[in-house]
Amino acid sequence: MFCKIVAGEIPSEKVLEGDDFVVIKDVNPKVDGHLLVISKEHYGTFLDMPEELYSKMLMVVRKVVGDLGIRDFNLVVNNGKVAGQLIPHVHLHILPRKEGDEFRVGV
Amino acid sequence: MFCKIVAGEIPSEKVLEGDDFVVIKDVNPKVDGHLLVISKEHYGTFLDMPEELYSKMLMVVRKVVGDLGIRDFNLVVNNGKVAGQLIPHVHLHILPRKEGDEFRVGV
Repeated sequence: MFCKIVAGEIPSEKVLEGDDFVVIKDVNPKVDGHLLVISKEHYGTFLDMPEELYSKMLMVVRKVVGDLGIRDFNLVVNNGKVAGQLIPHVHLHILPRKEGDEFRVGV
Repeated sequence: MFCKIVAGEIPSEKVLEGDDFVVIKDVNPKVDGHLLVISKEHYGTFLDMPEELYSKMLMVVRKVVGDLGIRDFNLVVNNGKVAGQLIPHVHLHILPRKEGDEFRVGV
């Protein structure tokens, strides 16, 4: 499914597109502004990604939160089905937070 | 507080120690095997870390989960007070998951 989003075959609201990652709005947001950072190449899990993409993925996070002026946020990667990874294509959640919102990340 | 843990002034159960990060057991675990990856240099938040440490931080995660045989896990970074960052020293949570545990990460 994410491969189709990256390819534009499934419509999505892209916030940023770089060489290696796209950032889209989550279609089922848990908080206002919930974003997903998705690798353009298909890797099943976080553990399957090549090392050089780790830094690039987090620099994409830094750019997006900077561009959007988001200071307080949670970053979440769910790795594996038991951990709640619903789609077997590596992705990172950016959850912008506001005082008094009802979201709880559990740690 | 984390600086004192890194320096050994506050006791902790270290799982791994590298040049740039230490991995310790969370003293208030939310799941069995809850770990924290802590930078040895003090950086307040994820956004304050130098770029080269991003990749290193995630490679430490990869090494630890590999060494411990953890396949299903959540990675969480809380950035800023409103997002639940209780200690102003950058750290990443590794939450190993098991079928039927009660932990919920919210996404």
